[in-house]
Parts: sequence; C-alpha cells; structure tokens
Amino acid sequence: MRPGMKHPPLVSLLTDFGLQDNFVGLMKAVILRINPACRIVDICHEVGPQDIRRAALLLENSFGYFPEGTIHLAVVDPGVGSRRRKLLVETRRYYFIGPDNGVLSLALKKERPLRVIELSNSRFFLKPVSDTFQGRDVFASIAGHLSAGIPAGRFGRRVTGLQQLALPIARRKGGVISGEVVYIDRFGNLATNIGKALLEGFNRKQACVCVKDRLIRGISRSYQAAPKGRLVALISSFNTLEIAVADGSASACLGAGPGTKITIRRG
Amino acid sequence: MRPGMKHPPLVSLLTDFGLQDNFVGLMKAVILRINPACRIVDICHEVGPQDIRRAALLLENSFGYFPEGTIHLAVVDPGVGSRRRKLLVETRRYYFIGPDNGVLSLALKKERPLRVIELSNSRFFLKPVSDTFQGRDVFASIAGHLSAGIPAGRFGRRVTGLQQLALPIARRKGGVISGEVVYIDRFGNLATNIGKALLEGFNRKQACVCVKDRLIRGISRSYQAAPKGRLVALISSFNTLEIAVADGSASACLGAGPGTKITIRRG
Amino acid sequence: MRPGMKHPPLVSLLTDFGLQDNFVGLMKAVILRINPACRIVDICHEVGPQDIRRAALLLENSFGYFPEGTIHLAVVDPGVGSRRRKLLVETRRYYFIGPDNGVLSLALKKERPLRVIELSNSRFFLKPVSDTFQGRDVFASIAGHLSAGIPAGRFGRRVTGLQQLALPIARRKGGVISGEVVYIDRFGNLATNIGKALLEGFNRKQACVCVKDRLIRGISRSYQAAPKGRLVALISSFNTLEIAVADGSASACLGAGPGTKITIRRG
Repeated sequence: MRPGMKHPPLVSLLTDFGLQDNFVGLMKAVILRINPACRIVDICHEVGPQDIRRAALLLENSFGYFPEGTIHLAVVDPGVGSRRRKLLVETRRYYFIGPDNGVLSLALKKERPLRVIELSNSRFFLKPVSDTFQGRDVFASIAGHLSAGIPAGRFGRRVTGLQQLALPIARRKGGVISGEVVYIDRFGNLATNIGKALLEGFNRKQACVCVKDRLIRGISRSYQAAPKGRLVALISSFNTLEIAVADGSASACLGAGPGTKITIRRG
Repeated sequence: MRPGMKHPPLVSLLTDFGLQDNFVGLMKAVILRINPACRIVDICHEVGPQDIRRAALLLENSFGYFPEGTIHLAVVDPGVGSRRRKLLVETRRYYFIGPDNGVLSLALKKERPLRVIELSNSRFFLKPVSDTFQGRDVFASIAGHLSAGIPAGRFGRRVTGLQQLALPIARRKGGVISGEVVYIDRFGNLATNIGKALLEGFNRKQACVCVKDRLIRGISRSYQAAPKGRLVALISSFNTLEIAVADGSASACLGAGPGTKITIRRG
Repeated sequence: MRPGMKHPPLVSLLTDFGLQDNFVGLMKAVILRINPACRIVDICHEVGPQDIRRAALLLENSFGYFPEGTIHLAVVDPGVGSRRRKLLVETRRYYFIGPDNGVLSLALKKERPLRVIELSNSRFFLKPVSDTFQGRDVFASIAGHLSAGIPAGRFGRRVTGLQQLALPIARRKGGVISGEVVYIDRFGNLATNIGKALLEGFNRKQACVCVKDRLIRGISRSYQAAPKGRLVALISSFNTLEIAVADGSASACLGAGPGTKITIRRG
C-alpha cells in the first residue's frame, strides 16, 4: 500500500486480449507477484484486435468512475516490439499506463496530464522482456511497482507530446448537426460522436434525427419512450446521442454501424 | 467494513450486460469508489439481453453458495427508466438488489424476504441518474453504500408485493411427470424444470424419460453412466432433471432447447 | 490467512466452464464461503469443452508467473463422477489441484511434485457431493480449505503416479526441425510445440520455416519485422515458435490450426 493511502491500490485493465487465452490472467499474476495487496478491476478485454479507437472511447467513458488514485492500464498495442513509446501519465486524480498510440488520448483530453514519463528503466520490467507481450513484461510490471509505491519518476524520464487519434468530430452548422456512429454496444444500440453539449439550445422534443433513410422525431429520456420495436433517439448514460430500439437491436434494424452518418435538424 | 463484520463485504453481480462493453466494469468502479474494501464476484454477465427468466434461474441456483451477508446484485432491466420499482430485499442471510420485474423472485421463493425496501432515497444514487444505465447509477451505488454499512432502511420506505415470474411448472399426474427444458448450458446439457422432489417414489433405474422422439431408460448418477455420444438423463448439481450426452451436446443431438417438452414414465 | 503468510492467499482458476453459466461464480462462492480472505484470479475459462490438452498447455504457460504459494485450480474434467483420482500436488513454490487426467501434467514437468495427495477425505467436500459438478463440491472446497491453512496432508493419503498427456513432440533430425501447431490464440497466431531450445545453434536469420505450402524466411524478434499482412515466424512470449501475420490472422491466412505440420530448415 502506498504511504498515505487508506485503501489498497486499484488497477483497472482494458485490453484487446480477449478471454480465450491466458493473456489477461498473466497480467494480473505479474501485478500480484509484485504487489499482492493490489486490487484489479476489468474494464473490458473484448475490444476488437488492434482496435485502438474503440479502446480509447471505452477508457474515456470509464476512467472517471473509478476511485481517485486508480492506475488505468490500457493495452491495445499493434506496435508491440516497435519503437513506439511506452508511457506512464500522471494526472491530478489518476495514473494511465499504455503504449503511445492514441489509446490514452481521449481520456487525457478530459483529464489533463501533469507529467508524462517514458517507461525506459528496464529495472522495473519483467525479464526477459519479450517483443510480443509487453502487456505482461512491461506494462503490468510497471503497474505493479507503481501500485506498490515506487515513485513515478523512477520509471523513466519526462517526455512531451502524446500521440492523438484522428477521430471524426461531430459539427453543428446552422440548424444542422452532423455526426456518425462510433460503436455498437452489446444490445445493438448505436453510440454516436454527437455530444450533449452540441445539442444545447435545440428543442429536443422537436428535433428530427436522420439515420440511413429513417427519421426519428424527438430526443427522448429513456428506451421506454418508444413502443417495443420502434427506433428511439436519446442521450446515453455517457452523454452522447444514442440510437436504440426498445427491446431490440438498432444496429440490426438499421443495418448501421461505425461510420454510419447521423444528422439532426430542428423539427 | 460493516460494524461487527469480521470480513470484507461481498457483492455478487448478475447482469445481461455482456463483456464486450464497459458496463460491468463501471458497476464495479462505482461500488469501489464508495467502498474500496468491498469484494465483488461475478455470477454471470452473459445472460441473453433482457432475459429475466434465465437470470432469475441463475440467481436461484447461485445465491445460497455465497457467504452469509453477501449482497446479491441482479440487473436485467428492460424497464430501465420506466416506473418499475427498484428494490432492496433483506432476508435472514442475504441482501438482494435489483429491479422489481421478477429477476429476484425465484431466489426469494427459497429465501423468505424479511423486509422489502423501495430504493427511493436519491441521496444514495450516483448523480446525475441516467434513465438508461441505472445498474451503474442506482443499483451499484446502493450496493456500495449498503456494503459500507449504511442501514437498509435509509435507502427508502418499506413496500410489499414482489413481481413474480410466470414460469411453466412441472407436474406429476398419475404415473407421468411432465415438464420442459428451461435452458441449455455451456456443454449443451439441457436443464429442465423437473425438480428432484417430483421424482420421489419413482424407481429411477426403471424410469423412461421421453424427449422429442427419443427414449432414455433410467435416471443415472453421472455423465459416465452412458457410453460416449449416448443420451443420459440425470439429476443435475442443481437438483433438477438434466439431459446430457457424455462428451457431447444433448442440445445439438436432439435439436432441443428452452420449451422442449419432457415426460417421465415408470418403465 | 495461513500462519506465516504476509499476504492473503491466492487461488488461480482454469476451467472449460465458459462464462455463460454460473459455474465459475459458484466455485468462487464456495472458496470465499470457506475463506473470505482468499483472492482469486482467472487464468482462463474459455478452454473448449473437455479440451484437457489446451488447458494443460495454458497451465504450463501460466503457473510460474504467479506469486509463490498460489493454489492453481485446474478443472477440465470429462471424467467427473467416474473413478478418476482427484489430486492435490505440492511443489516447492505452488499447489496444484485438479483431476488426474493429464491437465496438471505439463506444468508438473516444469515444477517437480514434492507430494501428491489423493483427495479422499470427504470431510472437506461440500455436501452433498454431486457427480456432475465436482469443480464446485470437491476442488473449490479443497482450495478454500487449503487457502485457509488446513495442512495438505489432511485431505487424503499420499499416492504416486500422475496421468500424463500423449502430446506430439517436436524433433530435430539432422538440419531439420519438425513440429506442429498446438493452438490458435485470440489474434489468429499459431502456437507450435517447437521450443526455443530446439533452435539452438540455428542461424535464425537464415532459417526457412515451412507451413502448408508457404515458406517464411528467417525467425524474427517481433510482429513488426514483416510488413502488414505478411507472414512472420518468431519466438513467442512463451518461448516457442509462433507463426503470425502483422495486423492479421495467420490462422485465417493459412487455413491452419492444431495439428498443422511445421518444418524448419537451414536456409
């Protein structure tokens, strides 16, 4: 336990490793071998292989719900073994660990980095360091040591600059908002990049949401606003516009997915 | 830790949220932000979307294996955002938290409720409360506070009545037992609603189990009773009749699933 | 906590139970009811039904990353309810619990057994013991008691002999190494049974790896060695030869899977 902490340290895990192999279990083993008091919570491991963007969105939508002091470990790392940087980012409330490929970037737009450290001190790596599984040999190992109280500065030197993601951005021009679907959730709901703030001043009851050739009238508060099987547009629990079907799948109903265009007009 | 408790509190989680999103991780984050000492065990998150019945059966078959004092949190909630009640139920050994839609009802037939509380005190919710993810904003938050020692009565007022599930019930009439398949497990085994008690007085060795157009002679003790690839009927580890195939899938072999009729006759 | 232990005991879990049922949750419940201080880490539960070989390989590749004292619980048990033995194996650093069907055997080639105990003392089982779910009623129960400090000798009598797995072994004859694919991982990478040691003395840069009708020149250090979409052969993070495609699936690309032959020649 770190000095001054009342509670055992917490590590969150977000990867594209899936659950059919032992990758996630080994990251946990490495953390616990270094710091048996550490606690670990899975955010998600079913991110599509190499899908940095989905992981970045998940991290953005997740990190702030965790207790202060949580170490967020995000490993979607198509460049493993290349010269991409391995980072530890310190913010006011959290630590973030991961490759410098954009996976941390959306979260760090919401939570300003105080210090970015390149993980170069191999003393804190698991040896030998493989070139194919640094989630285990570098990132989990660093998370374990950090959780055990090793000061962040020991892991490497301060650096600047963070790889950003080139994401499509929703825009409002005149009376029209244009955005797109960014992912499909488990229930077939379509999450979009249209944030709540963009809708300010819009009369939600009269808005017309257009997706593919379908028109949805009004932006509702809950799935219950529409009869079963009917499309509904609402502000999701992550404060972005979502297209859903009560007790059904909007994705299947519309044949829509990441990239599908959405426009909103005043009704 | 609650006063008088020797061990950290335990929350079990049962949802239809799946593991491809961050829903489950966020429920855990919320619990741990409120009570960092809490421990959390997953019962299952791969319940089919909105499948209240499957979740109710899983909870019924699971709750009693947990330590006394466990807080069972079951969120399969197609009515999220509607006026369905949100409940905390106290029994002699456990707490149960979930929507009042039947998901708790099978467990609470086995474990009598001492007190039912409607979760109305928004002071213990995560703000703002979304109308689409109350698993995070209401249920996990209440579980966190309860685990941290807040008395149950603080979360709302006592109410009566619990939504029940309309489940098909197995019956015995003369020498014939009639029931049906209620779910298929990972191995393709067919779980039925025919409880062990219904078989009392039956000569198990001579019983004839009829499913689709197939006849299985005898009710065995284990999968090993039949040669590989052959159908076997047995009493499962949850004390109901199960149809299996040793080293195979009874579901695939019979083309059977939830709703398939089963009859048992004296041989 | 066991006498003399500074940290809470740790149990690792490896099964073919999947995550769509409550099997894994119930094993954890049983462990925690016996020892609420115990910690539990999942290695993997998505081993194919009854796939003892895959589980044995996963355990072999995982156990050594865990803290000393970890209790490794591996339940892939097609013979459940038969007379196959139920074992607890003590080594210098770890405990292993599981059925005597080979699932423990690959790990125990790397970590010599000091004592093998047949789990025969039913006093430490969960009653009644089912003949279909001994992962819960026997193995988890024993792990709970062992983690709580019950000496291993109390669970049964010492026995000898361990069921071995008949695995294909890679061989080197003259200048040619012959082996085969043993599993496909989440990313479509092909893991083989050709260990790093077999390659000693080989010039890795000039080696020719032949799989199906394709030739891969050189054994690389990382996925980055080849352009996107191209086949690459490398030594995996588990020290065996692996065939991969950078940002793609070698399995899909080659139509290869467990059993596919691999040969390596001097280039």
